[in-house]
Amino acid sequence: MSQAYDIASLRAEIGPVKWEDNPILVRQKSRDFYWYSPVLKRELETVTADVVVTPKSEAEVRAILKAAYRLGIPVTPRGAGTGNYGQAMPLMGGVLMNLAEMNTIRSIERGRVICEPGALLIDVDKAAEPSGQELRMFPSTRATASIGGFVAGGSGGVGSITWGGLRDFGNVLRLNVMTLEAEPRKLELTGEDLHKAVHAYGTNGIITEVEAPLTARYDWVEVIVGFERFDAATAYALALAEQDGILKKLVTVVEGPAPHEYFLRHRSLIPKGASVVILMVAPHALDAFEAFTRPYKDARILLDSSKASPETLKGLPPAYELTWNHTTLRGLRVDSRVTYLQARYPSEGALQAIKTIHDRYGEEVRGHLELIRFNGRIGFAGLPLVRFTTEARLNEIIAEHEAMGVMIFNPHRYTLEEGGMKQTDALQLAFKRETDPKGLLNPGKMIAWENPEFDFSAGRNFLFPGLEARARAAGA
Amino acid sequence: MSQAYDIASLRAEIGPVKWEDNPILVRQKSRDFYWYSPVLKRELETVTADVVVTPKSEAEVRAILKAAYRLGIPVTPRGAGTGNYGQAMPLMGGVLMNLAEMNTIRSIERGRVICEPGALLIDVDKAAEPSGQELRMFPSTRATASIGGFVAGGSGGVGSITWGGLRDFGNVLRLNVMTLEAEPRKLELTGEDLHKAVHAYGTNGIITEVEAPLTARYDWVEVIVGFERFDAATAYALALAEQDGILKKLVTVVEGPAPHEYFLRHRSLIPKGASVVILMVAPHALDAFEAFTRPYKDARILLDSSKASPETLKGLPPAYELTWNHTTLRGLRVDSRVTYLQARYPSEGALQAIKTIHDRYGEEVRGHLELIRFNGRIGFAGLPLVRFTTEARLNEIIAEHEAMGVMIFNPHRYTLEEGGMKQTDALQLAFKRETDPKGLLNPGKMIAWENPEFDFSAGRNFLFPGLEARARAAGA
Repeated sequence: MSQAYDIASLRAEIGPVKWEDNPILVRQKSRDFYWYSPVLKRELETVTADVVVTPKSEAEVRAILKAAYRLGIPVTPRGAGTGNYGQAMPLMGGVLMNLAEMNTIRSIERGRVICEPGALLIDVDKAAEPSGQELRMFPSTRATASIGGFVAGGSGGVGSITWGGLRDFGNVLRLNVMTLEAEPRKLELTGEDLHKAVHAYGTNGIITEVEAPLTARYDWVEVIVGFERFDAATAYALALAEQDGILKKLVTVVEGPAPHEYFLRHRSLIPKGASVVILMVAPHALDAFEAFTRPYKDARILLDSSKASPETLKGLPPAYELTWNHTTLRGLRVDSRVTYLQARYPSEGALQAIKTIHDRYGEEVRGHLELIRFNGRIGFAGLPLVRFTTEARLNEIIAEHEAMGVMIFNPHRYTLEEGGMKQTDALQLAFKRETDPKGLLNPGKMIAWENPEFDFSAGRNFLFPGLEARARAAGA
Repeated sequence: MSQAYDIASLRAEIGPVKWEDNPILVRQKSRDFYWYSPVLKRELETVTADVVVTPKSEAEVRAILKAAYRLGIPVTPRGAGTGNYGQAMPLMGGVLMNLAEMNTIRSIERGRVICEPGALLIDVDKAAEPSGQELRMFPSTRATASIGGFVAGGSGGVGSITWGGLRDFGNVLRLNVMTLEAEPRKLELTGEDLHKAVHAYGTNGIITEVEAPLTARYDWVEVIVGFERFDAATAYALALAEQDGILKKLVTVVEGPAPHEYFLRHRSLIPKGASVVILMVAPHALDAFEAFTRPYKDARILLDSSKASPETLKGLPPAYELTWNHTTLRGLRVDSRVTYLQARYPSEGALQAIKTIHDRYGEEVRGHLELIRFNGRIGFAGLPLVRFTTEARLNEIIAEHEAMGVMIFNPHRYTLEEGGMKQTDALQLAFKRETDPKGLLNPGKMIAWENPEFDFSAGRNFLFPGLEARARAAGA
């Protein structure tokens, strides 16, 4: 596979689009939070694009895609680079299409926002605020992540306790995507067609516009409830999550001693060893929350942002920045051995599975649970903190989880399938055939495209040959 | 038990409170929709108050309660009389306290409304509309029911698909209640204390102010989906209800041929024999709803209010007036043999229980299901339509349902316990001891107060001796 792309011709063809080819800067923009995973860190460390182009309009996107098609140059889209599966890392080099400057928020209506993909989630929420609205869900990287990146590379987050995941019907309303063809087309995806491009890592089209649902906005109260025991924290979190009348945006459980050890700016609030439940509760639900909590004699309210003094609150990051992938990040900053899994626990018997895991692994696997709605009921997702020793041991832990009925979305793999359902997504594959006949969009991420014979059940990782070839070429 | 209340002294003591003692008008106001039940119709037909008083302020409520205490006169509060368990029927006569004119809406804030108990639900929603908000839930009698009556005598309704029931934490924020004592006190109930007065039929305090949560308001789209088979309609409704991202306010299933036969103004839209799923869907969820529905090849959209012509919509009642207790009402209007049950189907195996019932009773019991959230998951409540023959047969059907694990909240009984959990509510009983030492508030409705020895497990109905005595006195 040739690595010698005709970048000069590309530049000439696309005209005055913002262009960056300083290798250091290009390398920076070719990264995401892949280094959360010691496996991806090793596998992807040499990955870099040849050039970063930063379109400011759909017309510029079209020009880039058209030229890339003619010249056979890979194009990998990037929002804000806050993913951590290497979603936006250009395994085959070529063009890194940075969509950060296509960030116009076009309209806010009742229940909807229309914006460009590079709009930051926090900016969308700010724009929606005067209408009394906000996005249904955001990742813990809300402050820096783009909406297009979230839709293309995320799966849910803060808000999923109410609304489920991004791939659920209704959580994205419309996507405009541009194809990589001789004459790039703009396709408008709605309804069931959204599944073609949501969580496809941009492998089958460049998202140029997003329409997302809005919901009622509240000044969410941040609450941290401490427990001596992880199982008590978990049982409480589940029972609270199941309270349909207590409106909340976040219910997270983190096993002790991680909260005290890793949440440095909250440290003085959290007793050593305590497990915590981290919450965002609507102001008008606070009284009910307190009433619900009172019978839990082992529960201690460690923080209630509506009652805390300004001094206490000063310098604290938002509570959601202790949750979802930020939990891992805070662990990593304190202890470089920390890595993680992404798990979904079985609908029946989740508490038992969680206990079994706790008892089995002890300090090697620390519980981090995220309560979400899934198919009409409350359940547990999680990003358990794993003390990394070897890749073999990590894979063993994954296999053992799966044997217990815990589904692992492996965050140590860069492909859609291995980080997802471990099977071909026929809809996304078929759509790629339409939108990207040369296979130039974010190559190496969709196994079904790269190797239709790949056997997902064989338990072997997919190794993208292009990545190796590229690495060899770079080393040569 | 003496029926000779000193009404004249009451009038003298309470001063210029609005007063009605014309027996015909008093009798009218002493009724609710108890006649839905042939059993209650027979048992309660002679029930009437001695006088209707209509306070306009808390001060007037206090004066009435104070005088009633001194004189030993029962006081039964009434909102709009839209209940159908005889909740507001004064079994012992005395004062019917009509709260309809205490209907001020005091404030609308973010997530909250504060109002007097007589405010109609529809008026609360109108008042909240400019803020982009509405109540979380309302009964099908929204247009005529009061918020105080709903809280005191209802259990949930349209909106429970998202928020669960009225008794769930967070679905009522505060109640002010006045006690019936020598010096009536005003108590402010919040948190867990709300359970003392929510769904207590006013047996332990007169609600004088309600604070209720508000949520985002939408121009809900009314949709009716038709199916040839009831089981197909039911399975579809459950699957749709479990779509966490498709925002809806109502998911109801009514078995054919009831919809065509009973929904007279919708009749031309509904094929003979069809079972229907009746929905309220948020406008921005409509596209996702359609995408979700498309694979159901046996589903036919019979009405979509967002696409229907003005002529089609003209003269149609709101779709929610085909659901919850209105389904029964519409059946009764067409066929006087129609009565109903109130059921909750088991969390596990609901579809099987529903099918078993369907197969067992045929035309005698027609399915009417209401999808609700219950303890964090979607489940089935229902108000099956029963073709009434005898009371013995009705009780048999109830017993058979219970044997199948279907919980029946018997709408043919006027007591809290028999229409509810069939056990003493210790909290409400204890509260009554505090608030109503003479037992004058809505007498006969709380078995635990009237007969602490009553054996709920014996399968016998409670007969309130006061009711009989009163009937005899009236007949004498």
